[in-house]
Amino acid sequence: MADEKLPTRAEDFSEWYNQLVLRAQLADYAPVRGCMIVRPYGWALWENIQGALDRRFKATGHQNVAFPLLIPKSFIEKEKHHVEGFSPELAVVTIGGGEELAEPLVLRPTSETIIGHMWSKWIQSYRDLPVLMNQWNSVIRWELRTKLFLRTLEFYWQEGHTAHATHEEAVAETRQMLDVYTDFAVNEAAIPVIPGVKSDAEKFAGADTTYAIEAMMGDGKALQAGTSHYLGQNFAQAFEVKYLDQNGTLQHCWTTSWGLSTRFIGAIIMVHGDDQGLVLPPRLAPIEAVIVPIYKNDDEKASVMKAAKELKVQLVKADLRVHLDEREGFSPGWKFNDWEMRGVPVRVELGPKDVARHAAMLARRDRPGKEGKVSASLADLPATVTKLLAEIQQALHDKALAFRRANTQEASTYNDLKKAVEGGFAFSPWCDSGECEAKIKEETRATMRCIPLDRAAVLGKEVASGGACVYCGKPATNWAIFGRAY
Amino acid sequence: MADEKLPTRAEDFSEWYNQLVLRAQLADYAPVRGCMIVRPYGWALWENIQGALDRRFKATGHQNVAFPLLIPKSFIEKEKHHVEGFSPELAVVTIGGGEELAEPLVLRPTSETIIGHMWSKWIQSYRDLPVLMNQWNSVIRWELRTKLFLRTLEFYWQEGHTAHATHEEAVAETRQMLDVYTDFAVNEAAIPVIPGVKSDAEKFAGADTTYAIEAMMGDGKALQAGTSHYLGQNFAQAFEVKYLDQNGTLQHCWTTSWGLSTRFIGAIIMVHGDDQGLVLPPRLAPIEAVIVPIYKNDDEKASVMKAAKELKVQLVKADLRVHLDEREGFSPGWKFNDWEMRGVPVRVELGPKDVARHAAMLARRDRPGKEGKVSASLADLPATVTKLLAEIQQALHDKALAFRRANTQEASTYNDLKKAVEGGFAFSPWCDSGECEAKIKEETRATMRCIPLDRAAVLGKEVASGGACVYCGKPATNWAIFGRAY
Repeated sequence: MADEKLPTRAEDFSEWYNQLVLRAQLADYAPVRGCMIVRPYGWALWENIQGALDRRFKATGHQNVAFPLLIPKSFIEKEKHHVEGFSPELAVVTIGGGEELAEPLVLRPTSETIIGHMWSKWIQSYRDLPVLMNQWNSVIRWELRTKLFLRTLEFYWQEGHTAHATHEEAVAETRQMLDVYTDFAVNEAAIPVIPGVKSDAEKFAGADTTYAIEAMMGDGKALQAGTSHYLGQNFAQAFEVKYLDQNGTLQHCWTTSWGLSTRFIGAIIMVHGDDQGLVLPPRLAPIEAVIVPIYKNDDEKASVMKAAKELKVQLVKADLRVHLDEREGFSPGWKFNDWEMRGVPVRVELGPKDVARHAAMLARRDRPGKEGKVSASLADLPATVTKLLAEIQQALHDKALAFRRANTQEASTYNDLKKAVEGGFAFSPWCDSGECEAKIKEETRATMRCIPLDRAAVLGKEVASGGACVYCGKPATNWAIFGRAY
Repeated sequence: MADEKLPTRAEDFSEWYNQLVLRAQLADYAPVRGCMIVRPYGWALWENIQGALDRRFKATGHQNVAFPLLIPKSFIEKEKHHVEGFSPELAVVTIGGGEELAEPLVLRPTSETIIGHMWSKWIQSYRDLPVLMNQWNSVIRWELRTKLFLRTLEFYWQEGHTAHATHEEAVAETRQMLDVYTDFAVNEAAIPVIPGVKSDAEKFAGADTTYAIEAMMGDGKALQAGTSHYLGQNFAQAFEVKYLDQNGTLQHCWTTSWGLSTRFIGAIIMVHGDDQGLVLPPRLAPIEAVIVPIYKNDDEKASVMKAAKELKVQLVKADLRVHLDEREGFSPGWKFNDWEMRGVPVRVELGPKDVARHAAMLARRDRPGKEGKVSASLADLPATVTKLLAEIQQALHDKALAFRRANTQEASTYNDLKKAVEGGFAFSPWCDSGECEAKIKEETRATMRCIPLDRAAVLGKEVASGGACVYCGKPATNWAIFGRAY
């Protein structure tokens, strides 16, 4: 509801975020610490994210499956890095049907182990490969500091899992899914992410290499928005996932996993949102256009509502997600604010004068005030709105990219890095050493976000290769993004 | 795989079912007792079920949401019938993040309690009503005797939950969702269900009235395939879900819940399946038509595969779910058997002679042998296959309805009832007493499945009203279906 004003982002970005999630009714706090309820508006956004990703997964040959929530505790212990990473975060079921269980069961924090176990039964020969699976579910990780969407005890996600006959194929799959996430982020969510490689300190527990897409939020902080892991033969060895190759030799498989979660909703809020509230990218918005009828008396109401309903039918026919706000007892101005707060990309204002001249006023969410308003004829409205939505989608992306580049500094010295990470990213030469990374983190609270795969895309221009490590001064092996992260 | 023969249904219906689920790769046993893995073919079937239901839920104004898996144990104890019903089946988390929890958490067996808790915060006024929600998730019930899809510790379902201002509205909602389930079962799954009212003994723990759709399996047993509960004010009182009515009086809401689960996949298998394997209703089948290319040498292969690929494109363009079986090293006959076992409604056989005369042979899964085969021109194939699928869909329904009616006996005497439930349903006058119901169950293993809402639809003819209770001879209040159940 739009009755109280949100704090501005400049005043308190974190509180702006928390209040916005609640007021826009995207989510609410659950009675169990750290859990959330995703409310209809938030879940509709997630369903659009799911649809956009699922189409891409299926187009690249993946099939959806469902593995159980309950995993024998011993499974988690079979891969040594995996158990180190996940043990502190486990929720454990010790009682079932009124009786103490012989072996405790953990709630899946991720499914590599149980999938590895089943693959060892299903995969026999090179003919069975590749295995390309994905599942949509929720996982449980006992996080101590939680925040709606960004870090919750239970969160919703998809986890892709694939098994391959060769190292090369598995690497190609890992990179392909990183590309899928990048394409989704850029073209559906209008978020200009930086795809890159994580450091050893930041990689997935059990992975050889973790790739991620990193995004800059509206406060200059970094958010890891999706990850794709090359697992080598680590899990295949731990779970004896083997196949007979074409020469009759028994080989371990090479596996991957990749995931994107409801955390991405947090990214959408923090990348595009402004002081009035959400600004949703049209392609993912639950409502692309909202019609707000304007009238002062019953006569006006009759003619306006008739036209509004006809207009809704026309817009729905044009495959648009449209809502007609028929609420009684709220002024048009109040409704404008409410839908602005909820981030609907286009508002269609329809009053008696508009109806009389067969027109409506369109207001863009991304351009407040008169600048974003245009009158359009009702006959052309489906085409006009469709075109406007595409323009908004592009404008959101371009604005976010410009913001990210403006707040990313090429920082060759440690002083420059320290300044840069105060309000954005430092893009710096790095020697690849975990010690320098740890020191930078300790001293600046900035972590190594990724080594970008496309160095020129970070700032839209070539940067020098080589150079000296921003921390220790030894020869740099890579340029890396450093930033404070969510 | 089709290498070994299934047991026939007459030999061992239960073993036919178990082996078929595994061989068709619908599901597999998980390492945790009673849990299952739904494999790609099974999950694709579930996704089609989800799509068909979700469209209906949204068309009737419901919105999807996500409530957490973890529920404080004390919540379950707030509604007295609910706690009695569900306590024996709970899985309990006692450890989180390495520490003993102050209050144990249960894994949701169903979500009335946590939803009631949140509604008490969200619902204030009659303006907030009705609340129409649904969620797709999994729930955990610690079942002792399990069977893939039919009864598993974790199962997948949707649970709808609604809150209303009046008793009448809540009853209407309960009945509407029963109608939605009936429409789905009949028109999507080709399963002629009997919608009706459950007895007090069989109703949901916490409901005032439970409605269900009951179906007859291929062995004459009953399966409850979906339920819709009128919950009265039971949960609203337990969780203080109240609203201010238009007169400013505080009232408790009236609530409903309704669910349909992966158990429905078991119904599809057992209603339509035959000794060769699955027979899937076209509207839900993951693959509606499979193209099996036939060739003996490389020349034939080249021309046949070219035509097969073109044909696939044509069929996909006609919005058909098509698969082209390109597997090497398997004979066409082996592939025919394999796809029969997997229940694909239409097989398209394409050999060099067919290609030469621009035709293909179509084989119907529901009519084995020559009777179900017809040659069709390639140019017309999309239209021919589309028409054939609609015919198959109708034929499956009609066959299942005829089977159910042939195996349902109007049984006015207890002897007749005992005979009827040996291989099907008894439709009998009943006095509404729980004692008679319990005695019948004890003596015949048949339970009261439902009191049909449309009495004449059960056998396709009017049955007498009134009469004497089939067990005690006192005046009957209703005619009820009795049967042995899954």
